[in-house]
Amino acid sequence: MSKADDYVAGIIAGKARIAAKAISLVENGDSSAIEFLKALYPHTGKARIVGITGPPGAGKSTLTDKLAKLLRKKGKRVGIVAVDPTSPFTGGAILGDRIRMQELATDPGVFIRSMGTRGQLGGLARSTHSAVRVLDAYGSDFVFIETVGVGQSEVDIVQLADIVLLVTIPGMGDDIQVIKAGILEIGDIFCINKADMDGANRLAAELEMMLDLKGHFEGLRPPVVKTVASEDKGTAELLESLLFHLAEDENSGRLAERREKNLKTEMLRIMAKALENTVSRLTEQTGALENYSRQIMQGALDPFSASEKMLAQINNIQFRL
Amino acid sequence: MSKADDYVAGIIAGKARIAAKAISLVENGDSSAIEFLKALYPHTGKARIVGITGPPGAGKSTLTDKLAKLLRKKGKRVGIVAVDPTSPFTGGAILGDRIRMQELATDPGVFIRSMGTRGQLGGLARSTHSAVRVLDAYGSDFVFIETVGVGQSEVDIVQLADIVLLVTIPGMGDDIQVIKAGILEIGDIFCINKADMDGANRLAAELEMMLDLKGHFEGLRPPVVKTVASEDKGTAELLESLLFHLAEDENSGRLAERREKNLKTEMLRIMAKALENTVSRLTEQTGALENYSRQIMQGALDPFSASEKMLAQINNIQFRL
Repeated sequence: MSKADDYVAGIIAGKARIAAKAISLVENGDSSAIEFLKALYPHTGKARIVGITGPPGAGKSTLTDKLAKLLRKKGKRVGIVAVDPTSPFTGGAILGDRIRMQELATDPGVFIRSMGTRGQLGGLARSTHSAVRVLDAYGSDFVFIETVGVGQSEVDIVQLADIVLLVTIPGMGDDIQVIKAGILEIGDIFCINKADMDGANRLAAELEMMLDLKGHFEGLRPPVVKTVASEDKGTAELLESLLFHLAEDENSGRLAERREKNLKTEMLRIMAKALENTVSRLTEQTGALENYSRQIMQGALDPFSASEKMLAQINNIQFRL
Repeated sequence: MSKADDYVAGIIAGKARIAAKAISLVENGDSSAIEFLKALYPHTGKARIVGITGPPGAGKSTLTDKLAKLLRKKGKRVGIVAVDPTSPFTGGAILGDRIRMQELATDPGVFIRSMGTRGQLGGLARSTHSAVRVLDAYGSDFVFIETVGVGQSEVDIVQLADIVLLVTIPGMGDDIQVIKAGILEIGDIFCINKADMDGANRLAAELEMMLDLKGHFEGLRPPVVKTVASEDKGTAELLESLLFHLAEDENSGRLAERREKNLKTEMLRIMAKALENTVSRLTEQTGALENYSRQIMQGALDPFSASEKMLAQINNIQFRL
């Protein structure tokens, strides 16, 4: 039995320590990670993956927390992957996160994992997705991907989910510009958190109006749900909405369609990363990078023409994942 | 004369409208952009590129503003590229930025441009760098790359500069953990802004201690400069420090070394993006992506093995930038 098989066996047997080790393996880009992920794949697909995103301060962590606790009461096992690519500068959110983790960590039916910035963002998306797979095979009924950061990349990561919960709060700006058009596209459920603040009803009305204007939806029309997560208000309704949406998507075949689309995105990312690694390795080994950069510095060439020349030299090469 | 040559001629003649159009061309990933960038390249290299990064709320925009005004008083032309990849959710910083721009925009010796999220982050780094090149050829003596966002990707973008100014403020956390080890590596000058706040002296002492611990530096030891940008306090000293550092790096040959290193990073990014585009195009055209994702959905394959198969099929292909 290979090391990869050992990991897989431990994970499907529900051993938390082995699941944690496996995620680290993937996060560190260990060379054995690919073999492990291949072996793990057949044991995945059962968990429902919920992406949670929104601007900083919207209360995403608290909301995830409450949803996880409600699911636990229903006897469901929950995994949480908190993505934090903001990390070059440590912010308050992360400290809050750690405190939260200590609270939930005592429940063996909950597995929480933070993913930081290791290597490039493409790598982060890949390792986040792999961490979700580990928690899926581990027996989670639901896996939440929660982003701490606010960039496009976090949105991309969350989009790998079965359903996306977009969390916003009143008072982020004078008008609905707070949520840009692109963001409206990715939310399957809109949650207005801190709904006891002024402007919550107006924000809800504006969101509904934007949805009216959009008119056509691939699946269900996204509901707009108001919550005060810190007081556990509206969270049960939010969970019902989430479960209803997932059930509808499953029955209509939309869940399968979406997973197929996500799979394509994932493979394109895997290949892009593999090609990137290969090109870095080759151009450094052959000295081409060094050679061309010297020519450019001497004014004999430009970086675009040089890149074209190097790419033309890449032929019949073995690409490594 | 090609369209690319027209753009180049307009830019080196200092025509602001053409420079702005050229940046849009690059930002939109227009197919003619590569030809234009090749033609532009020989006219670049004169400007000094200053990267400014730091946590949100550190006052990076105000600081850039003041430095730009001081440089204008010395008769220098200034370009500012404000990178904002946080944009899926609009924040306060961007509004503040727009107000600022209106103020400085009346000065013909200053060119300000915001770069938002269009496409992937790799694309953002590339278009930011190209925007800097345009402002360089346009006749800017200094080009500031200022990040609004806080992710690793922004740090990567800023690292393409000749010199990096790391801005921080007191009271971001209980201890020096505010600045992680990796961040210490990229700062050439440390600026403690809002230095009239409690804890500024302690933060300065801690930074100096961390620099002592580090011991070895590739170029000059990074100075720690205190400013209150909003009151224009310490900004003249900061600029002196910046100019001294740049002059030293030029004399010691370190500037050329750094530019060569940045060039290599840039070419690797150009190639990675080209490969990514090519693979997306090919796997969609041949139906391979569709075909394999169906097999995976049926449980006959996993995404990693499928990616390997697709990569193995890529041979003798013409890569397009």
